[in-house]
Amino acid sequence: MKAGLILVGTELLNGGMLDTNSLYIAEELNKYGIEIEFKVTIRDFMDEIIKTIDYGKRNVDLIIMSGGLGPTIDDITKEAIAKYLDRPLIVEENELSELKEKFQRAKINFVDINVKEVEKPKGAITFRNDAGMAPAVYIDGIAAFPGVPKELYDMLPKFLKWYSKEKNIDTDEIYIRDILTFGLAESLLDQEIRDFFTEDGIYYEFLVKNYGTIVRLQSKESNKNKVEKIVEKIYNKIGNYVFGENADRLEKKTVELVKKLGMNISTAESCTGGMIASRLIDVPGVSEIFKEGIVSYSNDAKMKRLGVKKETLEKYGAVSEETAREMVMGLDSDVAIATTGIAGPDGGTPEKPVGLVYIGIRVRNDVYIEKRFFNGDRMKIRERAVSQSLFSLIKILDKGENDE
Amino acid sequence: MKAGLILVGTELLNGGMLDTNSLYIAEELNKYGIEIEFKVTIRDFMDEIIKTIDYGKRNVDLIIMSGGLGPTIDDITKEAIAKYLDRPLIVEENELSELKEKFQRAKINFVDINVKEVEKPKGAITFRNDAGMAPAVYIDGIAAFPGVPKELYDMLPKFLKWYSKEKNIDTDEIYIRDILTFGLAESLLDQEIRDFFTEDGIYYEFLVKNYGTIVRLQSKESNKNKVEKIVEKIYNKIGNYVFGENADRLEKKTVELVKKLGMNISTAESCTGGMIASRLIDVPGVSEIFKEGIVSYSNDAKMKRLGVKKETLEKYGAVSEETAREMVMGLDSDVAIATTGIAGPDGGTPEKPVGLVYIGIRVRNDVYIEKRFFNGDRMKIRERAVSQSLFSLIKILDKGENDE
Repeated sequence: MKAGLILVGTELLNGGMLDTNSLYIAEELNKYGIEIEFKVTIRDFMDEIIKTIDYGKRNVDLIIMSGGLGPTIDDITKEAIAKYLDRPLIVEENELSELKEKFQRAKINFVDINVKEVEKPKGAITFRNDAGMAPAVYIDGIAAFPGVPKELYDMLPKFLKWYSKEKNIDTDEIYIRDILTFGLAESLLDQEIRDFFTEDGIYYEFLVKNYGTIVRLQSKESNKNKVEKIVEKIYNKIGNYVFGENADRLEKKTVELVKKLGMNISTAESCTGGMIASRLIDVPGVSEIFKEGIVSYSNDAKMKRLGVKKETLEKYGAVSEETAREMVMGLDSDVAIATTGIAGPDGGTPEKPVGLVYIGIRVRNDVYIEKRFFNGDRMKIRERAVSQSLFSLIKILDKGENDE
Repeated sequence: MKAGLILVGTELLNGGMLDTNSLYIAEELNKYGIEIEFKVTIRDFMDEIIKTIDYGKRNVDLIIMSGGLGPTIDDITKEAIAKYLDRPLIVEENELSELKEKFQRAKINFVDINVKEVEKPKGAITFRNDAGMAPAVYIDGIAAFPGVPKELYDMLPKFLKWYSKEKNIDTDEIYIRDILTFGLAESLLDQEIRDFFTEDGIYYEFLVKNYGTIVRLQSKESNKNKVEKIVEKIYNKIGNYVFGENADRLEKKTVELVKKLGMNISTAESCTGGMIASRLIDVPGVSEIFKEGIVSYSNDAKMKRLGVKKETLEKYGAVSEETAREMVMGLDSDVAIATTGIAGPDGGTPEKPVGLVYIGIRVRNDVYIEKRFFNGDRMKIRERAVSQSLFSLIKILDKGENDE
């Protein structure tokens, strides 16, 4: 089955927006064995949208559109679909009152133009938007979603579940295993595992995420056993770089492990400045184990809040193994993570360049210090330091758990 | 002047690759006032490429292609251009020997298929590739670049410099004003400002970001004065919701204001758990003014690190105006921000539902407490609380600054 993507929005062409939606759409469609043949990004001009829908209708089975479902004057996707199909735009009373209720619950004023959000070509079916206002719309091989990622993520799976039933796509037939890795570049991962894939019908791909790289194995259900054998080989070969499977995340895994070991955790962050704490606190139920976080960006805070010695800061500097060690020792919890580094753009020296980060980890009385260099801009360096800290902690806790 | 982008490569459609090339191309073209009308991503299939070139030729002045210039069998972009223009592919002797020298210098074996890298449609001119092997090619309104980002970055500016001279471009530049707003939904913004846009050739659009909504005004440079008059009207109408322009961000603006007032800042975060600190610390140079951050997710940390009274927590609860007040009072800095709320998914009650957040702000001795309700999942509620905190602080500091 073939699909085409049409992304609508002038801002997607000349603005500074990275297109992450189509990556997501491709991943979801591929789960159902639907391949994308083309992707077109166009301005919100009526004739251009209609022309592109026409091209899609003549070339693929399913058109997925994203963007232009909002209430404002430049939101014309549904109108374009209606014009192309020569159908009127209608509003169903129950959908309108549902929308109004949503506005009320969200304490947002409902104004006249908001009615547009539930307009649809006559005969279209809709999918409930649990992450925003305008529902997704499907009619005659054309599905339209909002451009807001959260809303797309909410409704595309609902749509595909329905669509695959409607079209008798046998999803049971597809078997997927996601192995989550951290710390090894895509090309190196590829080198390590490519020889395991000699069999026809068993594919792999890499999905690069900000929390690591997913190795996705995909085949028909009937090949399940063969896939499992390959998974075993992958674990034997690169198990050191694996931190979980499927919906695992570094922070989720960390919280689970700390809980399982009956411990609690605190953080002391300099260059990462609260990001480690923030990622942990995004895990529901973290309150049982998260004791406190200190953002000790200044030397004063390092001394006052963590008891880092003045002499240590003077002799070795704030970005040093010794400071990282005193930071984790200054936290009163079973598990402690600390970071201190140079995130740039300024502040680097030949001995301590931008990107240098010391990661301190303490589990009860055992202290581990890592010296790392990360590439990228300020944000990237900080994000990488956060992920590396969590990954290293997971590996230490995993080992501790297995030893017990 | 109008351009279209054609990105060639099957891996761009179903693989896990984020398209950063077209963002870069858009920025470069916009510098010359060249607007992008469409962007198409297609597989490396001959007939699809030719069909798309044909579409471009009939709709825009300049086609920029990326990908498919390499030596392997699926690199067919130049062949497609030659077929479309009905010209033979040729190799110029001097370009071939230059390529061979490059291979020699890079100590890579030159094999027969590498000749393809200097093939071009007869009559095409080339642009030297100082970051790789295959040169960029231009003929008859069609420019083709490699898909490798560093090679594109090397040759696109060279091409545009030449092209803009050739076509006498430089007067028709685009004029863009980005007004950054927070706290007003897109549809309400639209209602407030739509009447200001009666003139042809002056457009506006909304870009919804996680830090707010950008109102983007766009026109030709020659309409600059008219745009500025509209900007003034927008400020008069919705100035309360504006926090900056162009590259401003809530955190950047906060840091600038605190610096300007000669103050310093600390944070005490419960439900936002380090995100406020983290966003502030993403601003280069924040070290001058950021004193410390406390992630006091637990009641223990609130008492021990911030001096929140046990009675307060017992009588009013951790999520209360009183606790927020004691949190900001417990920080020893000129400016203090505190959050305490219920991010969910559990922990809500009828009186204190999921989404309830108290924001505490202290500027020297003045304390402001806001009670807010945010929608969304755990992450969204936390992100919104962070942005709201920074926005409220900016408005207070802005006022303070103007009063002085």
